[in-house]
Amino acid sequence: MNKQDQLIIFDTTLRDGEQSPGATLNFPEKLEIARQLARLGVDIIEAGFAIASPGDFDAVSRIAQEVGQFDNAPVIASLARTNKADIDRAWGAVQHARRPRIHTFLATSDIHLQYKLKISRSDCLEQAGDMVQYARSLCSDIEFSPEDAGRSDPAFLYEVLKVAVEAGATTLNIPDTVGYVTPTEYYNLIKGIIDNVPSIRERGVILSTHCHNDLGLATANTLAGVLAGARQVEVTVNGIGERAGNTSLEEVVMAMHTRKQFYAPVYTRVDTTQLVRTSRMVSSLTSIAVQPNKAIVGANAFAHEAGIHQDGMLKNPLTYEIMRPESVGWNSTNLVLGKHSGRAALNDRLKQLGYELTRDELDKVFARFKDLCDKKKVVADADLEALLTDQFESLDNDLFKVEEIHVTSGTGNTPIASVRLTDSDGEIRADAALGNGPVNAICNCINRLTGVDAKLVEFQVHAVTEGIDAIANVTIRVELSGADGKKYIYSGRSADTDTLVASGKAYLAAVNKGLSRANKNITPDRQKIGSV
Amino acid sequence: MNKQDQLIIFDTTLRDGEQSPGATLNFPEKLEIARQLARLGVDIIEAGFAIASPGDFDAVSRIAQEVGQFDNAPVIASLARTNKADIDRAWGAVQHARRPRIHTFLATSDIHLQYKLKISRSDCLEQAGDMVQYARSLCSDIEFSPEDAGRSDPAFLYEVLKVAVEAGATTLNIPDTVGYVTPTEYYNLIKGIIDNVPSIRERGVILSTHCHNDLGLATANTLAGVLAGARQVEVTVNGIGERAGNTSLEEVVMAMHTRKQFYAPVYTRVDTTQLVRTSRMVSSLTSIAVQPNKAIVGANAFAHEAGIHQDGMLKNPLTYEIMRPESVGWNSTNLVLGKHSGRAALNDRLKQLGYELTRDELDKVFARFKDLCDKKKVVADADLEALLTDQFESLDNDLFKVEEIHVTSGTGNTPIASVRLTDSDGEIRADAALGNGPVNAICNCINRLTGVDAKLVEFQVHAVTEGIDAIANVTIRVELSGADGKKYIYSGRSADTDTLVASGKAYLAAVNKGLSRANKNITPDRQKIGSV
Repeated sequence: MNKQDQLIIFDTTLRDGEQSPGATLNFPEKLEIARQLARLGVDIIEAGFAIASPGDFDAVSRIAQEVGQFDNAPVIASLARTNKADIDRAWGAVQHARRPRIHTFLATSDIHLQYKLKISRSDCLEQAGDMVQYARSLCSDIEFSPEDAGRSDPAFLYEVLKVAVEAGATTLNIPDTVGYVTPTEYYNLIKGIIDNVPSIRERGVILSTHCHNDLGLATANTLAGVLAGARQVEVTVNGIGERAGNTSLEEVVMAMHTRKQFYAPVYTRVDTTQLVRTSRMVSSLTSIAVQPNKAIVGANAFAHEAGIHQDGMLKNPLTYEIMRPESVGWNSTNLVLGKHSGRAALNDRLKQLGYELTRDELDKVFARFKDLCDKKKVVADADLEALLTDQFESLDNDLFKVEEIHVTSGTGNTPIASVRLTDSDGEIRADAALGNGPVNAICNCINRLTGVDAKLVEFQVHAVTEGIDAIANVTIRVELSGADGKKYIYSGRSADTDTLVASGKAYLAAVNKGLSRANKNITPDRQKIGSV
Repeated sequence: MNKQDQLIIFDTTLRDGEQSPGATLNFPEKLEIARQLARLGVDIIEAGFAIASPGDFDAVSRIAQEVGQFDNAPVIASLARTNKADIDRAWGAVQHARRPRIHTFLATSDIHLQYKLKISRSDCLEQAGDMVQYARSLCSDIEFSPEDAGRSDPAFLYEVLKVAVEAGATTLNIPDTVGYVTPTEYYNLIKGIIDNVPSIRERGVILSTHCHNDLGLATANTLAGVLAGARQVEVTVNGIGERAGNTSLEEVVMAMHTRKQFYAPVYTRVDTTQLVRTSRMVSSLTSIAVQPNKAIVGANAFAHEAGIHQDGMLKNPLTYEIMRPESVGWNSTNLVLGKHSGRAALNDRLKQLGYELTRDELDKVFARFKDLCDKKKVVADADLEALLTDQFESLDNDLFKVEEIHVTSGTGNTPIASVRLTDSDGEIRADAALGNGPVNAICNCINRLTGVDAKLVEFQVHAVTEGIDAIANVTIRVELSGADGKKYIYSGRSADTDTLVASGKAYLAAVNKGLSRANKNITPDRQKIGSV
């Protein structure tokens, strides 16, 4: 295998993926995902949009310092618009990585130039050249993206790309920002660029794909780009991202893996057996569910293996199977821990699942693990993942802590809840409230105790393991007024064998998040500044 | 627009879609979906696999008699293997439709011939010819599918197709049964068939696509087939189906709609404004969730419209939008009913939502609607859909009915539930039980009262509307032993403002289903006999 045929996997789960509505990740969550992406073997992690908020800057910096320092560490990139402030901020965040990258972008379609940026084509050319050159003066690895390339005039696009290469861009990324193109068109777009911008070949510049899934064609467009000569693909785990999301990492990787001959000599160095684990971590931490019929990582993707009856159906698995479930990490060892497992065994298992905890964090998780063992005979991987999700949730500074929750509910009665909290001064607050359901009664009681007027906008529960002693994983989103009087959405999660206790904790986690940001005067939603 | 360029939409949600693990639909549910598919404007409804079970046969027959009799009724099709018993059964079910079709299939790949069917290539040719001819002697509209065509030897495939056309097939469907091909390969496959089987053109035989999404390429492959000359596409709503599912109806339709010029002169007659409504009905009745980042019908697919903050972002919606949400039926009128709405208003709204109820059914829903109005000020479409789902659930013969449920639960206490049921003799049974969570306590109590040993294998809750008075929609799957001693899975759903009451009703619905099938000695899972 020739190094120049290795397809570079550029994962943007932490940047474009995190722009999914409601997906906001806190810092420890981002770091865990970045570690898992490194374990999966992606080549580049776009860790965020450094100038978008102080939180984004810190996350990119820390990921650069920690994950970017591993042996064979992935490149750590930050997005930046084509202006000095953005580029400086991006550089400030990524410079500590062993291999840093600045990814700068500027729209090139007439509709974006005219309506969004209000600049002329010649302004665009000048800005692209100047800013790529400036970025290159800081960092030797510079990616340039002409936003909305899919709808740009090809002749003008070639001009902009020539200027960017002249100015020092080492990767050119061609975004179909709105998910509009067909595979044939995207193939021709990439081919046209290679044929009309000779400096790409001359200087060994890498061409990259960046596709969106609005019409369900992101994977096909990305692979068409690879066939046309692209050697980097921008993807997200589970295909998350704005609107219908980005190209799914797992689909592109497994299409290439399953159809090796078709895509040869191009290959990837991803460890496919980490795909399911990575998918579950991202789904769990972002609270963005993966539908059962999602390719590769959906619960039914390998349905013959997932418990349905199949007596005598399969005389040869190849009749209905083109991939083995084990090849993507389904059916890996499970059900290993229980009452008699110690700290070391727990820590080992957590490492295998992709989580690296500090001593303090491990102490807390171990305490919760022991509580759980009192209620469940066997603790499965999914249970541990649920506990950890909960753990990350509580790493945000909690103003209020749940001490007790009690509920009485049923047909014909008005549900009643009593809640006891500790506030940030350690004082106990307790009260009771009615509701039209048990969860509603708990939420009403928490509103009364915390003095907020939060409104529940989403409520989801699923059992993370089978059987009567399953853990319930609750995700709640609430709407709260910010310091500026506007409404903002916060999410909270919790896991417990008692659905109602988990609901109360998840609701309080969301309320704590809202109150804590309001106190610190942090804008809850980052600045919305566009993206590729 | 030329009639011969109209792309025929062949919807197989009720056949291939219903083969999704856990998606089993009862008869009233199938009929409602068929009615909605007719309203959406699909050209053909594959209503089931008539020989698979008596329930399948009845469902296909009734859909043929009711939905197949509308003005401009869609064609009603049933699947059949290439043998007389299957074909007779299919014909028995579809013959009452105004326009019936028999869809018969036989594998043509060497791996299927050798391992699954254990027949030679010449047996395959003979069987295909004889059985297409036999089917044609019953019905003038015959579709033939060479199963696993994507992995068949092209030369042999041409031979089989020639024989099928000679024998009277009017449509040839080319399944990529295992989701293996690339768009280029599928284009070449369809093109090769047209070029090498001249009788297709001579007799005006329609070529059809049937793709699976194992590598995320189903939509792209289907559209590649259309570009190569196919004029029928086999699709399912939300892309449900075995493993990673089938091609999504909504993606193919909206790709063609959004890129009219690219696909011209081919067009569809689907009413795109019914897409979201159809998606929600199928998701609600099958309990197969649609992920937020699903193209077209996911909750975030048009995220700028879904409540995220966007002040000043969009100076022109076209900068980030290639479709209007209204064009697929998002943001249609909502929140229209309340305390003062009468029976007629409710019935009108239900019709608009695609549900047609008998007088008895309407009475029951109206009673539940009035109960709900006591708890919620405003009843949204999603609330009504939840009530109806519940309604369909209870159309199965209920052995046990819930009279009362009470629960006390919380931190530090062992949850306790009391349940009061009526059995099929009208006798009251009541008891109490403990659990490690409130749902578990209810399930334990129901097991005790019904004498079954059901095991909860899946538990999901989501709030169907926003706000503190949201309705919780609970889906539960349980494992029960059948009369044959094997384990079978049954699902139950319920909706209520009280999550725990809904959980208890959903659990009992699943238990009732299991007991009722065991009593009638019906095999819970239909015969597993393969499919395209």
